[in-house]
Amino acid sequence: MDFLTLRRVAIDTYKENVAYLHRDCEQYRSEGFQALSKIEIHKVEDGPPVLAVLNVVDDAAITAPGELGLSEEAFVQLGVSEGAAVRVVHARPPASLGFVRRKIGGERLTLDEYRGIARDITGHRYSKIEMAAFLVACTETGMEREEVLYLTQAMVDTGDRLDWGEPLVADKHCIGGVPGNRTTMLIVPIVAAHGMLIPKTSSRAITSPAGTADTMEVLAEVGLKPERLREIVRHERGCLAWGGTAKLAPLDDILISVERPLAIDSPGQMVASILSKKSAAGATHLLIDIPLGPTAKVRTRSDALRLRKLFEYVGDRLGLHLEVVITDGRQPVGRGIGPLLEARDVMQVLDNDPQAPADLREKALQLAGLILEFDPDVRGGQGYVIARDILVSGRALAKMQAIVGAQGKTPRPPAPAQMRQEVAAPSSGVVTRIDNLQMARIARLAGAPMDKGAGVDLHVKLGDPVRRGQALYTIHAQFPADFGFAREAAEADNGFGVGDSLPPARI
Amino acid sequence: MDFLTLRRVAIDTYKENVAYLHRDCEQYRSEGFQALSKIEIHKVEDGPPVLAVLNVVDDAAITAPGELGLSEEAFVQLGVSEGAAVRVVHARPPASLGFVRRKIGGERLTLDEYRGIARDITGHRYSKIEMAAFLVACTETGMEREEVLYLTQAMVDTGDRLDWGEPLVADKHCIGGVPGNRTTMLIVPIVAAHGMLIPKTSSRAITSPAGTADTMEVLAEVGLKPERLREIVRHERGCLAWGGTAKLAPLDDILISVERPLAIDSPGQMVASILSKKSAAGATHLLIDIPLGPTAKVRTRSDALRLRKLFEYVGDRLGLHLEVVITDGRQPVGRGIGPLLEARDVMQVLDNDPQAPADLREKALQLAGLILEFDPDVRGGQGYVIARDILVSGRALAKMQAIVGAQGKTPRPPAPAQMRQEVAAPSSGVVTRIDNLQMARIARLAGAPMDKGAGVDLHVKLGDPVRRGQALYTIHAQFPADFGFAREAAEADNGFGVGDSLPPARI
Repeated sequence: MDFLTLRRVAIDTYKENVAYLHRDCEQYRSEGFQALSKIEIHKVEDGPPVLAVLNVVDDAAITAPGELGLSEEAFVQLGVSEGAAVRVVHARPPASLGFVRRKIGGERLTLDEYRGIARDITGHRYSKIEMAAFLVACTETGMEREEVLYLTQAMVDTGDRLDWGEPLVADKHCIGGVPGNRTTMLIVPIVAAHGMLIPKTSSRAITSPAGTADTMEVLAEVGLKPERLREIVRHERGCLAWGGTAKLAPLDDILISVERPLAIDSPGQMVASILSKKSAAGATHLLIDIPLGPTAKVRTRSDALRLRKLFEYVGDRLGLHLEVVITDGRQPVGRGIGPLLEARDVMQVLDNDPQAPADLREKALQLAGLILEFDPDVRGGQGYVIARDILVSGRALAKMQAIVGAQGKTPRPPAPAQMRQEVAAPSSGVVTRIDNLQMARIARLAGAPMDKGAGVDLHVKLGDPVRRGQALYTIHAQFPADFGFAREAAEADNGFGVGDSLPPARI
Repeated sequence: MDFLTLRRVAIDTYKENVAYLHRDCEQYRSEGFQALSKIEIHKVEDGPPVLAVLNVVDDAAITAPGELGLSEEAFVQLGVSEGAAVRVVHARPPASLGFVRRKIGGERLTLDEYRGIARDITGHRYSKIEMAAFLVACTETGMEREEVLYLTQAMVDTGDRLDWGEPLVADKHCIGGVPGNRTTMLIVPIVAAHGMLIPKTSSRAITSPAGTADTMEVLAEVGLKPERLREIVRHERGCLAWGGTAKLAPLDDILISVERPLAIDSPGQMVASILSKKSAAGATHLLIDIPLGPTAKVRTRSDALRLRKLFEYVGDRLGLHLEVVITDGRQPVGRGIGPLLEARDVMQVLDNDPQAPADLREKALQLAGLILEFDPDVRGGQGYVIARDILVSGRALAKMQAIVGAQGKTPRPPAPAQMRQEVAAPSSGVVTRIDNLQMARIARLAGAPMDKGAGVDLHVKLGDPVRRGQALYTIHAQFPADFGFAREAAEADNGFGVGDSLPPARI
């Protein structure tokens, strides 16, 4: 077996490792490699091989015969320097693909089989196509609840697990689907100010216009090293960080890189993804928020109840103390949709500003109250009052400022977006409908979450009277192309219904 | 909107278009593109845009700021020269992805929806991940038989369609799964020698050690231009060509590029793939071979009958005269597995060599006989006798030689593989079992179909007596790594069963 000279190819192929071999390379010819086949790259010293998909190159300036090129992430994974000698061999198809095929065939898999799949995926043995096949197979037949538990356990097993050394570590999670809804940034300071431990890590937006990590980033650093995070939490009792730096349930992160382009989101995947992350993050007490509404992720009460039971089943078996609440998801929560606009809403609530969005404030207090009642010393039913006292007294604001200071204040806060366009009510009446999906879509087209200042700012909510020509909301964008797309989308469907009266809520 | 300068990036990314933008490119920054997002590339003159997945580059030697790099196939698709001015914009997600999501949800799709999916896939609007999702969704819920018809029609609609200007155009197809089994290369010369039109185009191996196109290529050119193919068929009444050069049902070719790595093969996809290709190729009369056996693709008689009915349902509605036969798929057909070894078997039968594999000869005569009976002038039950006469008289060999000559004899026929290893019977008795899958796997590991001479040569078949230490088969390989893999696989499981007596066939 001959050696090749390692070369870093400065191409960012995201979560898929790509290796480059020149078409005239001896190794390419003699080993019968094919484009898109998977190869294993071994270094001379000990250490696990790196797996990559092969692209064939005809330009020696990219990768010359005798060289092996690696895309950026793969190069980092291999962990040796350019010019090092490496060997390549055919990668055998991962054994667990047989389990995926059986899942496609509608069969039930065991814990060991899910563990096998998890190991191979985190070992970069799956291509994106194979991961998509696994996800769709799980989505379509659905998984039995034991299988959801197995997948969750397999996800926890593939990564590190934090131990905070305390008997009560609180956390909360919303399943998403409702724009705005930035309650976490209110709950964490309230709960931490009470003294309860709440080391909150959040994801960035996957298909939404803003995640908690994107929004918190408007105010503070969120990409903190695990040791630093631990120190902040010890000192402040809470944090608002991005979860991507810790190696918690890395399988979930890899699967999300395929879920995102597919925009699939099955109950089983959702429960496994959320509970594995929380369990790995060391949470002992967890509040789950399931917004229910005609344009939310969960649209019927029976679906919401079924999802709640699935959370409870898996959570109980993982030893989590779990509380699941079904909330009003008929419309966005708060006014802003997009990182900067949502951060403004949050700060208005913390400032006790009379202009603060009442729905965001009320929902945050309700959820914070439930979490405070995890404390055995808090009497049932008293959580809300305690949460309100903490907010009104300014202790929540002070705690937020302390957390921002500890994480590191953003040196140059993002500026508001330059381009703005109001979208007017086409007729007079009462707001009867706000489409969560369409509002999220317009905000994303406007540039959120990539452009922090971009998004949508709502001026009226369900039940508010409007006159013809009055602004329903304002689109904020930073770049002309995005601005055009967002305005076009709003023209085709402004996302609002205006009628005679608001039908009674059936939440 | 600013223009970028087009650059050809000499990277072969197979069937997925990839575009490269430098991280510091103004366009990349101002338009908020993200790695792995899809972009549309427009040329200045009229013409459809090309869609590609974006990779971000940090090396100006690959793609500099102000340039747009395109991988080889994408560059060819755009059809302008290097240095041309191009514009890039965000690609909108294809509308038909909503149909795919509904299919994942288990819904039934309409003809128009399948047409929408087909148009977007052939327009390169789907990523490989999205295609995988579509395929798995179709595989898992299965498709209702009307949906299989719709998908077949949509596949036919996306490509060209041949018209041979004759009322009887014969074709045959085997669903695969049984190694060896190279009957097509015997049937075509027999049927063409009778004077019936049989313009046979075949695929290359997808997951098997050899396809008819790979095997024919040992003898003759198979990559013929459509005009040339038409001329050969007009003159010889038949051909044995690779189907990839004509633009017949291109959707099928694209889907196969995803099916291959996934190794999924559902009845609905199979029927749609086969019948769309045959219908587009202008066939009017079609024989389908379904091998049945414990290690074949179809393993129970009821599955075989169900598949036959699905073929009949779709074929009838497409106006095809269809005959479906269920054949003995308990073991490989013939002796050789791999292009060169299978071509040797075929030529032995055509030569009326007493050493020729009897099972291959007999099966080819049976199937050819059924096709000959498509001829209204052939009396029912007489087809077999006519086929045998054509073979024994040497007319089949003469026709094969004429077809090889017309297509162009291979200038340098591939040499037999250098490395050989016999695999011996571990005990004495009778051959009771030959595992099709394991034999195919060993042949592929040995290098087939990429290395024409590689594969497996069987020395005994079901029911043959063997003594301990006698060679069951010989592994042929060209390269040491492949040879090692194949021998290792045969050591772990030689694929044979040796026992007291062969259980009676239940085919």
